[in-house]
Parts: sequence; structure tokens; C-alpha cells
Amino acid sequence: MGYFEEKISGKNVFRGRVFSVDLDTVRLSDGEIRPREVVVHRGGVGIVPVTDEGEVLMVRQFRYPVGEELLEIPAGKLEEGENPEECARRELSEETGCTAGKWVDLGKMYPTPGYCGEVLHIFLATDLVYGKMHLDEGELLSVSRVPLETLCKMIADNSLPDAKSVFGILKARDILKD
Amino acid sequence: MGYFEEKISGKNVFRGRVFSVDLDTVRLSDGEIRPREVVVHRGGVGIVPVTDEGEVLMVRQFRYPVGEELLEIPAGKLEEGENPEECARRELSEETGCTAGKWVDLGKMYPTPGYCGEVLHIFLATDLVYGKMHLDEGELLSVSRVPLETLCKMIADNSLPDAKSVFGILKARDILKD
Repeated sequence: MGYFEEKISGKNVFRGRVFSVDLDTVRLSDGEIRPREVVVHRGGVGIVPVTDEGEVLMVRQFRYPVGEELLEIPAGKLEEGENPEECARRELSEETGCTAGKWVDLGKMYPTPGYCGEVLHIFLATDLVYGKMHLDEGELLSVSRVPLETLCKMIADNSLPDAKSVFGILKARDILKD
Repeated sequence: MGYFEEKISGKNVFRGRVFSVDLDTVRLSDGEIRPREVVVHRGGVGIVPVTDEGEVLMVRQFRYPVGEELLEIPAGKLEEGENPEECARRELSEETGCTAGKWVDLGKMYPTPGYCGEVLHIFLATDLVYGKMHLDEGELLSVSRVPLETLCKMIADNSLPDAKSVFGILKARDILKD
């Protein structure tokens, strides 16, 4: 136990709007020197908004990197200086038009800790009050209400591939059924 | 419904050992032109190996991008020309020394479909036969057997942040309890 990797040197090789890439050299706990390619990302949030009727507000959008339209929980990136809960309230409002009276922290999630530093903070949001959605520029998505039970069946049928959605929905189900 | 993004042009801006990065320009379904930063990754597998005693073989390793030692299901990247099930058998053997008599497909997972094309194929492996582990160079990890029930408690306590592990373990639990 007690593995560790210490940074010896590093350089930035790409700086983008969504993420940047660093090429670091590290020393492993056994003294060996290895290269590490790292996607640097500010992190974000995902929200499981559940209505009083037990439906989840889900967003559908085209995801260019995987070439598919996906059904996902509302989510978004942290803005500079924003904490996860502020970000979750903002993204829920932007993507669904809702505010929530009750928030439960469903924990942090590392999507790909092997090569990316991104942390997603996942929340359950209930006691929803409906308003008007206001999307970011270049964001095309539609919102639908899907019964939590239907989503759990989709997960069991392997037809909901988005990691944060499965993470959030199965955790929310376990909390809501208690 | 029916959102789509069509690639107009693109260029590679980084080519690494683990992933590369493309900067593409796309046309959205409403005609708008937008840039897309994409991490290109070959994809991989994750395996939930469950013993006859209801324990999961978990690996612990330091994950440099998030700066933490993590408890994860065994996993690894697809090699050139390898299909997901071959990769799962190889990675299970390399990381834990086991072979499995029974495999169940737990579906594909997109860790971060917003900016990365990686697909992880997740499997449940049972009827385990034990052998000797043989790790890749520069891979430092230890294997431990953790009761499935303990892992589910860790997930409920928000102390298991690795996305593929939560995805695989909660799906495996639902299958194994039936």
C-alpha cells in the first residue's frame, strides 16, 4: 500500500476552451521514472432532478465525440470561482428552467482518473419549481420527464451509457426508496 | 429531436501514447458553426470479478491526474485489433491473475461524452480460477477482496468516486441479487 507518484517536471502541450493537456514526468513509489499524459479540466456537476411524481428531468443532446444523441442528467462545467452547489443550481436552471427546494450531495465522481483530472459533483434535486430554460450559446438540447423506474430499466438493459447519469440515477434510487 | 453535428474540418493538435486531441469544426442541426475539442481514445474495459463468497477483486493504485490512491475494478485499454471481451480476459488475468468461467456484458459506458470519445465496456466475471498476476511495466497496484456489500455501502457513503467502478458494481449487484 502507499503508492505515490511525484511530479518531477511538466509542460503544457495544448490549451483549449474546455480542457488543456499537460505532459508530465513523474517518479513512482519504486523510484522508476515515467511519463504521464494528463487532460486538465476544471470539473463540473451533474444533477438528478426528481419531480413529486417520481420522474427525472433528462436532457437529450448530440454528443459529437461519441457521434450519438444521448439521454443524460442535466450537467455542466464549473465557472471560475464557482463552488459545486452554486454551479448545480445554475445549470439546473439553465437547462431545465427549474429551481429545487431540496438538494442532496450524491458525492464526487472521477470519470477517467487514469488520464484526466476532472471531478464531477453529483446532486439529487427535489421539491422542484418550474420556470423558463435559458441555454448557453451553441447548446441544443431538449428536456423530457422520464419515470425513475423507466431509467432504471434502461440501465439494466444496458441502454443508458452515460457514466454520470448511471452514477446519479442509481444512487438517487437507493436514497428515494428508503 | 434529431439533433446532429456534422464535421466540416479538423486537425490533430496532440498525439500521445494514451490519447490524442483533435480540434474540429462542426455544423449544428440549426446551421450554426462551432468548434469542438475532442480527446480521441481507443477505449477499454472494466471488469467486476465476483468470487463464490460474494467478494469483488478490487485494485488499488495511485492515479496521478487526481492525485489520489483509488480503489477500482480491474480495467485497461483495448490493444490494436482486440475486441472488448478478449481485452477483458487479458486485463483480468494481468491485474488479478484470474480467469473467469462466466462472463456477463454489463454494457458500454461513456465516461465523458461531452469532450472525449472513449467507450468502456463493462463485464461481470464469475466462476473465478486463481493464477498469478503479471502487470504491465510501470504499473504498481495491489489487489484486495472486498465484499460486494461493503462496496455498496462505500458507494452510498460517497466514498467510491471512480465512475466505472460504481457503474459496474451497482449493475452487478442488481443482477446477482435476482
